[in-house]
Amino acid sequence: MKDADWFRDPCPQPSKTHEEGAEARQTSLTKPPGSLGVLERLAVRLAGLQGTDRPKAENVAIVLFAGDHGITAQGVSPYPSDVTVQMLGNFIQGGAAISVLSRELNASLEVVDAGSLAPDDLPGVVTDKPRRGTGDFSAEPAMTAAELAFALAAGRRAVERAANAKPDVLVLGEMGIGNTTSAAAITASLLDLPPVEIVGAGAGLDDEGIRRKAATIADALQLHGLTGALADPLAVLQAVGGLEIAALAGAMIAAAQARIPVLVDGFIVTAAALTAARINPACRDWLIFSHRSFERGHQIVLQALEAEPLLDLRLRLGEGSGAAVAVPLLRLACALHAGMATFEEASVSGPC
Amino acid sequence: MKDADWFRDPCPQPSKTHEEGAEARQTSLTKPPGSLGVLERLAVRLAGLQGTDRPKAENVAIVLFAGDHGITAQGVSPYPSDVTVQMLGNFIQGGAAISVLSRELNASLEVVDAGSLAPDDLPGVVTDKPRRGTGDFSAEPAMTAAELAFALAAGRRAVERAANAKPDVLVLGEMGIGNTTSAAAITASLLDLPPVEIVGAGAGLDDEGIRRKAATIADALQLHGLTGALADPLAVLQAVGGLEIAALAGAMIAAAQARIPVLVDGFIVTAAALTAARINPACRDWLIFSHRSFERGHQIVLQALEAEPLLDLRLRLGEGSGAAVAVPLLRLACALHAGMATFEEASVSGPC
Repeated sequence: MKDADWFRDPCPQPSKTHEEGAEARQTSLTKPPGSLGVLERLAVRLAGLQGTDRPKAENVAIVLFAGDHGITAQGVSPYPSDVTVQMLGNFIQGGAAISVLSRELNASLEVVDAGSLAPDDLPGVVTDKPRRGTGDFSAEPAMTAAELAFALAAGRRAVERAANAKPDVLVLGEMGIGNTTSAAAITASLLDLPPVEIVGAGAGLDDEGIRRKAATIADALQLHGLTGALADPLAVLQAVGGLEIAALAGAMIAAAQARIPVLVDGFIVTAAALTAARINPACRDWLIFSHRSFERGHQIVLQALEAEPLLDLRLRLGEGSGAAVAVPLLRLACALHAGMATFEEASVSGPC
Repeated sequence: MKDADWFRDPCPQPSKTHEEGAEARQTSLTKPPGSLGVLERLAVRLAGLQGTDRPKAENVAIVLFAGDHGITAQGVSPYPSDVTVQMLGNFIQGGAAISVLSRELNASLEVVDAGSLAPDDLPGVVTDKPRRGTGDFSAEPAMTAAELAFALAAGRRAVERAANAKPDVLVLGEMGIGNTTSAAAITASLLDLPPVEIVGAGAGLDDEGIRRKAATIADALQLHGLTGALADPLAVLQAVGGLEIAALAGAMIAAAQARIPVLVDGFIVTAAALTAARINPACRDWLIFSHRSFERGHQIVLQALEAEPLLDLRLRLGEGSGAAVAVPLLRLACALHAGMATFEEASVSGPC
């Protein structure tokens, strides 16, 4: 297959010229230099990513990938796998958190079934999956190499669809009962850390459940030979990943290749970002980290990516909800950058 | 004067009934319990403050108080006092950060000259001041008792004007070259801490400037007998306060008395909040803390008020800008609270 290695194709670099121009403009605005803190950095960064003097975050596309996880057979989540498909219905009917947020933000919302257990296409959902759910990675690989390639490309296909509307920013989210277990396994393997340091409560496990979850992951990493040396990110995804997580990684690389800034959500999307950055390091520049989740492992992955997220609101829902909540910060940062007067325009004195 | 002690009149309590109702609704929504973190707490708190099942933050009034400071004669700011009045013009002409934010948020903006050096009324600005600028508190009290009473009441008058539009939330901001020095002096006195622990760079002092600013404050607190024992908040305001800071304290108490939730900005507004809470402790319930400023003393005042702010974006501009940036969080928290489906409505299973 000619295009089989598309995810290794180069990602462009942000425009230094536009970053410097935005930087100079920020210094000229009527405020003490640096006093808008992170909002200034954000406007400058978006200027570089969008290659423009006047960055925007008006046109926002939200893409949410869902998948089911064979590992749920090991009792790693308090919720049954049925909830993944039930929530797909809720996303489309408008009752989920991300549905409300997409309406409030006037953002588009596409829901992709990248690997749920649903036997049929769900109305309003884009079905793009190589199989129904992953294999139970405590006993077998989560997916085959061909299924992994399909899931990565499903992420790219979603970005291609989203790109038609020329979004200023892409918000990526996920849904999948059991996927904090997969994300923790990926993180433990890629960062070579004991799973017990990464595993958290997910959707609501107690301490005993957390211990069991960590032990399940540790055993699986042993089984698949993913401990010790620096692991190959594709091998890790295939062995202990999720179809939605692979799609997320593919979407991030495709977005970076297409010059679309991505707003990264919580633990699971960030684990996918770590994987994407290991596959194609240059995609890291295109990722804006939206929030620090309450899920334990998130802080560790953020550190590994040298990411300082915008918000810290103890969110742990997923669905892209934390990234969506950060959208107004991008919008206000851009509005301030474009709309404030310079010292000269406003006839305001600088420092003595 | 009959109403002289208005600021000691009781503030109502938030509605426990509506808080409990909102709490119950949050538990029924399609998400793991607590997974929207701070956004859940915010919706529940606003329900209690607004006494409603469906809290809102649509109708937002921003009121900004400006004042000048005699202490600038001691070289405590890198900017000349002229900048206060110049910025009043910038607020009205729409070029300042808070002007841009008020437009983006579709919020009203009233600018009150509570004590600038401007000799005349400024177009578009409400002039409500007992004097032009404060006295240099390194040598004399910042204001007389009558001037303090006037400034506190100016805060109340602004709230009465804002209340006509029945705002869901009131954003309070300030402008005044030199006012981080006054806020640091107030904080040091009320918390009985050495000024050197509180003083920060303000609008941009270097280390030597910061040392001088702290020494100036320490000497002034000695001069006015404001060290050691628990200081009287009104005596502190009169000796080392600012007219805009007194107006802010008065506005917070008046808003609490009128059941209007207040979104508190950075260091200076929080120092005013500390003063207001010392004058009338029940007003504390009505204050929502928007952000943690990069100005050093802010963290200390927040701790004293047991406040956990929503944002931490290294802002240090003032004008109410940090509080304004937090408005979308309140709006999204309310939208999620009102708009999400319950488990029953969406036919989604709960935990096994």
